[in-house]
Amino acid sequence: MKHFETHRARFERAQVACATRECWSPFPDMPAKYPDSAAAQALGLAAFRAHLGGAGDKSFVLDQPGGVGEQGEEVSPYTRQKLGIVYPQADPNTLFDAATRAIGSWSGATVDTRIGVLMEVVDRLYQGHLFEITQAVMHTTGQSFNMAYAGSGVNALDRAIETLVYAHQAQHAVAPQARWERQFGSAHIALEKTYRLVPRGVAVCFSCASFPTWNAWPSMMASLATGNAVIVKPHPATVLPMAISVCVFRQVLQAAGFDPNLVTLAIDSTAEPIGKLLVKHPKTAMVDFTGSVQFGQWVERNAHPALSFTETAGCNTVLLESVDDLDAVLRSLATTLCLFSAQMCTSPQNIYVPASGVRTPDGLVGFADVGERLATAVATLTREPAKAALILAAVQSEQTLALLKHMQAQGGQRGEVLLAPKPYAHPEFPQARTSTPLMLRVSKTERDLYGQERFGPISFVIACDDAADALAQATRDVREFGGLTAFVYSTDESYIDQAQLAYAQAGAQLTINLTGAMPLNFAAAYSDYHVTGLNPAGNAALTHLAFVANRFCVSQSRRPARAKQKTEPN
Amino acid sequence: MKHFETHRARFERAQVACATRECWSPFPDMPAKYPDSAAAQALGLAAFRAHLGGAGDKSFVLDQPGGVGEQGEEVSPYTRQKLGIVYPQADPNTLFDAATRAIGSWSGATVDTRIGVLMEVVDRLYQGHLFEITQAVMHTTGQSFNMAYAGSGVNALDRAIETLVYAHQAQHAVAPQARWERQFGSAHIALEKTYRLVPRGVAVCFSCASFPTWNAWPSMMASLATGNAVIVKPHPATVLPMAISVCVFRQVLQAAGFDPNLVTLAIDSTAEPIGKLLVKHPKTAMVDFTGSVQFGQWVERNAHPALSFTETAGCNTVLLESVDDLDAVLRSLATTLCLFSAQMCTSPQNIYVPASGVRTPDGLVGFADVGERLATAVATLTREPAKAALILAAVQSEQTLALLKHMQAQGGQRGEVLLAPKPYAHPEFPQARTSTPLMLRVSKTERDLYGQERFGPISFVIACDDAADALAQATRDVREFGGLTAFVYSTDESYIDQAQLAYAQAGAQLTINLTGAMPLNFAAAYSDYHVTGLNPAGNAALTHLAFVANRFCVSQSRRPARAKQKTEPN
Repeated sequence: MKHFETHRARFERAQVACATRECWSPFPDMPAKYPDSAAAQALGLAAFRAHLGGAGDKSFVLDQPGGVGEQGEEVSPYTRQKLGIVYPQADPNTLFDAATRAIGSWSGATVDTRIGVLMEVVDRLYQGHLFEITQAVMHTTGQSFNMAYAGSGVNALDRAIETLVYAHQAQHAVAPQARWERQFGSAHIALEKTYRLVPRGVAVCFSCASFPTWNAWPSMMASLATGNAVIVKPHPATVLPMAISVCVFRQVLQAAGFDPNLVTLAIDSTAEPIGKLLVKHPKTAMVDFTGSVQFGQWVERNAHPALSFTETAGCNTVLLESVDDLDAVLRSLATTLCLFSAQMCTSPQNIYVPASGVRTPDGLVGFADVGERLATAVATLTREPAKAALILAAVQSEQTLALLKHMQAQGGQRGEVLLAPKPYAHPEFPQARTSTPLMLRVSKTERDLYGQERFGPISFVIACDDAADALAQATRDVREFGGLTAFVYSTDESYIDQAQLAYAQAGAQLTINLTGAMPLNFAAAYSDYHVTGLNPAGNAALTHLAFVANRFCVSQSRRPARAKQKTEPN
Repeated sequence: MKHFETHRARFERAQVACATRECWSPFPDMPAKYPDSAAAQALGLAAFRAHLGGAGDKSFVLDQPGGVGEQGEEVSPYTRQKLGIVYPQADPNTLFDAATRAIGSWSGATVDTRIGVLMEVVDRLYQGHLFEITQAVMHTTGQSFNMAYAGSGVNALDRAIETLVYAHQAQHAVAPQARWERQFGSAHIALEKTYRLVPRGVAVCFSCASFPTWNAWPSMMASLATGNAVIVKPHPATVLPMAISVCVFRQVLQAAGFDPNLVTLAIDSTAEPIGKLLVKHPKTAMVDFTGSVQFGQWVERNAHPALSFTETAGCNTVLLESVDDLDAVLRSLATTLCLFSAQMCTSPQNIYVPASGVRTPDGLVGFADVGERLATAVATLTREPAKAALILAAVQSEQTLALLKHMQAQGGQRGEVLLAPKPYAHPEFPQARTSTPLMLRVSKTERDLYGQERFGPISFVIACDDAADALAQATRDVREFGGLTAFVYSTDESYIDQAQLAYAQAGAQLTINLTGAMPLNFAAAYSDYHVTGLNPAGNAALTHLAFVANRFCVSQSRRPARAKQKTEPN
């Protein structure tokens, strides 16, 4: 309970934020505002560099059981050099056994004890490891320094705290004990009842290559706060941020008197994946998965009897119906299409425009014009390498470059290439894997091209019959192919009303008429729900009660009351 | 909101009961205490009789769409006569379409409006139909009049109200709107956010042959309160209680201005079941299932992408370690073994006893003695037909009689028959399908005999090495084969502590050292959790947040704030 008291004020403030969903964070939103930032950044960079191998591989020190070898294949998207880090590979059965043993005293602790320890983990990540993780995220995912700090750092920590708030709420909704008395005929029965929160067991948490912490931290918190253990299975391309995280969890748990094997790391390789084995392991009680649609759907179908919580991907849609300031809209859209080279599950991809064009105060701007002006806005944003580096950052995977090439060819045959991708020279990392965006113009019949997530900086401007058709088409695509976010521009309130209803039912989180400094797809912890669970883009949301309430069960026991007991003949 | 105001005091009292889990009900627990009971009972009996066919079949009037024929095969376990009621069979596609259309205005209503309407349904069932349903339950399930009134009547209504409390809590945990403001660089961003609760869609609710309302009413309430529609699929042997229920839901919904097709009835026959078709229907969003282990497991495995909430069956276990008053314990056990001929998912079945016997203040009572004295207690309870009728009631299905015969033969070969079953003459219904219990004594190695639910009045007294072995064996059987309830008798507090922990982890709801007037397996709404979800006996519990929280999703929309908006250049 010591830790809970230490962090009580912060936790209670987070509870208020979750209830009001107003803007709040205990953390500064920019690296420069971090306390003693320059020194902290230097320390973080040094800590990151200390992990790296030189000529040979360097072993990542993780004192967990079951070691059977070492494995590591990470390559920095910025340097295209191997990180040279090898992580201990563990025998899964040993990890499951150790995790199962670790649950006992942890699940026996009070809810507030667990949440206090996990708030301490959050604080330790922030105080001791934030810039180390920022560097680790950069050099695995390709994120920019600022995004790695904010999106994969403080905002991910906020999502973790948010999850603890709901875990607290769901568990405290169960009374710990009761006294129950009634008559049965002439007999008076008085029972003492005890209600125990029983964790489901061992959770397997898959983290993804491009944005590992943002989903994994809250998933880990959801399972741990409700008394379970977690085995973390990172994507082999992006291990380091999660390996550091696992170490911090283990250190804090152990220092608090709990078994560090509540959190372990399971490593695999691209050549020999162990994901399916972990999902189907008889001791797996829950699976949290962030990653590809294909594996996510396999998890949803095959996890039983384990519960699954998935976030995959889909078609994030934009509707351009009518605007007050087309340039402002196109600038915002262009920025968001470029942000981290659209390697975010919230990046927009499909832009639906009436064939007649977009209504503006200066009259109709034709469909072709709109596409070209958007392409120009994107080109303008990415022309200067220094500016491009800040916004596009690097491309995580070689596969994305191959996909860009393939889609450019397809798009050229079946529509028109509005903007062709090309590498840009990153000013700081000349070897960086980079690409400016590919933009395609297609007719709405090319559904097999745009009807799935095309991961990376790829977007489609799609001609629709009219505004109503654009809304119908976009929301149908979301329902059928999945979609996390959606963006509507309209000056017509009745169109907005229709769009709100249609997108609510399709289950994409909608942003309306937003322009300006905020990235359109920015999702704020405590305020923005991420994923609805209503379409194929995932079955779980960050964060509400359903994300935590089923991670524990209630076992009760009852017996005749020992004090105050009236006994009557029966 | 009219209905919510009408029922506000009752609802708020139920919220208190769920929080404290103390004893409460707005309803009298015995038929005689019902207001103007004799008249109400007579009216209920008349209403029931009005449903019955005479020489020919009588059509049950249910004005729902998609009619394609009529179907009915119910036989009263009391009279062994056909009820002669035929129900409208509907084309499932038509029902799904009608249910989907009905969701719109219902899900658009406020949470309190929906809960008010459903509290009105509860009140209408209680005020207008309770004794009609009591008779319908008797003459389909074989329950006694008192049990049908209490267990399938008022206690089931309590479970329905309880579910509404949690549906209220889970939905009100989501703020309806927020104002969110922060700086992005030099720009101030202010957003209005709206959070909509979006139902998952159409739920299919399976009700079982022996206890239809107790699970189905709360399941229906859980889905409806969160904005969904429900198609009720009753077991073909026990349709009438649910058909009456469906009518009441529809009448109240329609009177409140909503589409009655939010609740419809899907009928099938034993010869042509439609359960799998309903579960796999593309419009099925959720499945609530109560019934056999076999079909329940099929539902859990195959419902995806629909969510499943199951309650099936398992081995309910009894541990006899040491007692203060063996006769009192055996009397209580005997009563509970007889109650409704053990056709309850909470009925005990497997009684684990140390081979050395049970410790009592008068010394050890040997294993053989314990079994014989328990058999004698059961025989004594059921000797007088009038008394037997009150407690054993009737046997729902002919299959149960066949199973009794089969298990008696098996038990005689592999153990010893402690008590042989035989029909008893029901004083009121001479044709009633009845049986006194079968009790078998076996060694613990006969796991294939006792290691599953043997539905009906069948129990096993099982010799274990010692007290520790009895606990280990019993909880292992629960973990492996499922179990909803467990009963421990011990005067040793350290043994009780071990049993509490082991059963909590195995996931059976435990009753300790209970004797006296209360049936051991009585589960009280607002206080006793029913099913944990931790073992194969079901994945859902009545009722906590997890039973309702995932039946709706949150779709948000956000847009620049229209008032108080500061605009700064970006």
